[in-house]
Amino acid sequence: MSFAARIRACNNFDRTRVIPLYAGARRIGWLRRDNAVALAPFRRVFRIDSERAELVADGDVDAVSAAVDEVVDALVRDNRVPKWRYEVFDVAPRWGEAPVFRVDRGAVPFFGVRAYGVDLNGYRRDSDGIKLWVGRRAADKRLAPNKLDNLVGGGIGSGYGAGDTLVKEADEEAGIPTHLVARAVPVGAVTYLMENEVGIRDGVLFVYDVELPADFVPHNRDGEVVEFHLLPARAIIERIRTTDDFKFDVNLVMLDFALRHGLIPIDDPEYLAVASGLHRPLD
Amino acid sequence: MSFAARIRACNNFDRTRVIPLYAGARRIGWLRRDNAVALAPFRRVFRIDSERAELVADGDVDAVSAAVDEVVDALVRDNRVPKWRYEVFDVAPRWGEAPVFRVDRGAVPFFGVRAYGVDLNGYRRDSDGIKLWVGRRAADKRLAPNKLDNLVGGGIGSGYGAGDTLVKEADEEAGIPTHLVARAVPVGAVTYLMENEVGIRDGVLFVYDVELPADFVPHNRDGEVVEFHLLPARAIIERIRTTDDFKFDVNLVMLDFALRHGLIPIDDPEYLAVASGLHRPLD
Repeated sequence: MSFAARIRACNNFDRTRVIPLYAGARRIGWLRRDNAVALAPFRRVFRIDSERAELVADGDVDAVSAAVDEVVDALVRDNRVPKWRYEVFDVAPRWGEAPVFRVDRGAVPFFGVRAYGVDLNGYRRDSDGIKLWVGRRAADKRLAPNKLDNLVGGGIGSGYGAGDTLVKEADEEAGIPTHLVARAVPVGAVTYLMENEVGIRDGVLFVYDVELPADFVPHNRDGEVVEFHLLPARAIIERIRTTDDFKFDVNLVMLDFALRHGLIPIDDPEYLAVASGLHRPLD
Repeated sequence: MSFAARIRACNNFDRTRVIPLYAGARRIGWLRRDNAVALAPFRRVFRIDSERAELVADGDVDAVSAAVDEVVDALVRDNRVPKWRYEVFDVAPRWGEAPVFRVDRGAVPFFGVRAYGVDLNGYRRDSDGIKLWVGRRAADKRLAPNKLDNLVGGGIGSGYGAGDTLVKEADEEAGIPTHLVARAVPVGAVTYLMENEVGIRDGVLFVYDVELPADFVPHNRDGEVVEFHLLPARAIIERIRTTDDFKFDVNLVMLDFALRHGLIPIDDPEYLAVASGLHRPLD
C-alpha cells in the first residue's frame, strides 16, 4: 500500500472512456460513453455525436434546468442515477461564472460536471505534535459509508459560496460555533478526476485549516457522522499509507495537510508523488 | 496581468514540439525537435528517430557521462548550449533512483531532463502581517539577471540531497547559520514544465519555510545576490500579479507560500487557478 495508490484511486480518469459535454463553445462535463448512449433519446435536451455531446435545451437557467431535470427523472427510473438527493448544484464552465443550469447532486457524476466542496482540517497542537479531529461517516451514507472523514466537509450548493458552505457545514456536521469557524484559514484546493459507478467525479475541494482550542469537542447535528476522534496527525498519515479506512478524497486532503505542516519528511520515497499528486491542473 | 499569466509562462510546454528521450524503457527527457536533429550525428551516444530518441551509449555511469560530455562539448561550440556551468546534475528516470548519467547543468534544458532544486521562504510575523525576505539576482547571472528571487534557491547537484543543498545554499546565498536553517520545514514541491531558448525546463522545486527571528539579516557570500529586502507578503503577491519583477519560477513558489498561509482570499477570481496551477503531476 502507498500514498500513490490513494492518489491514483482518485485520478483513474481515462480520456478514451468519455466524450466531452459542451454548452456552446465551452466544455461543462465529461460523459462516459455508456452514459452518452443513454442520453441520445433526449434529443431536445442533448445532441450526442460519437466524439462529443452538446447541451441543446433552449431558454434561461430555469428552463434548461427543468429540461435536464426531466432527463434526470428518467435516469433515476433506469437506475443510471442512484436517486434524487434534493440538493441542487450549479453547473458552469468555470468556478465563479454564471451557471448554465442547476442539477440535482445525485446526477452530477452522470454528467461529469465539476463538483465543488469545502473541507476543514480541525487541528490542535499538543506537546507530542499535531492532532486532527476525524469523524466516522454514518453507515447509511450512500457514498463511502463507515469511512473516516474530515472534521467538516460538504458540497457547495447552488447559490452558495465556499465560505457560506463552510460555516453551514461546520455547524451542522460538527457543531463548530461561528466564532471558531471564523478563524479558519483558506489554504488551497485539492483537485482530482475519477471515474466511479455513476460516471465521472471532477472534484474540487476548497481546503481550510483551523486550530481549535483544547476544550473544543465536536458534536454532530445532522446524523451524517456517528463519532469523532482526536488522532495524532502522524498516525493518520500512516493509516492512509497502509489502509483505505478514509473516504477516497479525504485521503488527499489529509496528505495535503501533512505536507503543508512538514509531517512528511523530505526523504520519504513518496514525497514527490504526494507533492505533485493533489492539485491536478483544471482545464 | 494575472497570476495565471505567471503560471502559464512556466507551463508553456507543447508536446507536439518535442520527442521523448529514453534510457532503455524509461523516459528521461524531452528533446525539442531541433535539438533532436542536432543530436542525430552522435550515433554512438544517441539514436534519433522521428518520434523518439534513445540514449545508446554503453557502459557504467562514468562511461555514459563521458560520452554525453563529448556531445555537450560540441553543443557548446555550436552555441546550442550556452556554456559549461561546471556544476554536475544527476539524470535518472525518477527522483531517488540511481542516475543513468551525470550532465553539466548548462546542458540540462537541452536534453529536457528533470532538474531539481530547493527554495526557502524566509519569513517573519510582524504586527502588520507576514513579511518575506527577497533577494535581487546579480546583473551577471545568465538566467533571470536583476530579477527578484527568494531568500535561498539552488539546484541540487550530483550526489546531494534536498536537505544538504538547502544547508549549503542557505549559507552561501544568504549567510543563514546552521541552527536557523535547521528550523526550516519542508512543505511540498512546486513543479512546472516550460520551453525556454535552450530546450525544455522540467522543474521540481522542493519548498521549505523558515520563520526567522527579528534580528536576522541575510548577507550574500557568493556574489549571486546583490541585495536583500524584507517585504510584506501581500505587497509581494500584488507585485507578482501586476509585474514580472520576480524570476519566472519564483513567482510560483511565492504564490504557493501565499496560498498556504491564507494570504490569497478564497473569493479571489484566480484562487483556483493558483491552487491548481503550481503542482503539475509528474510522469
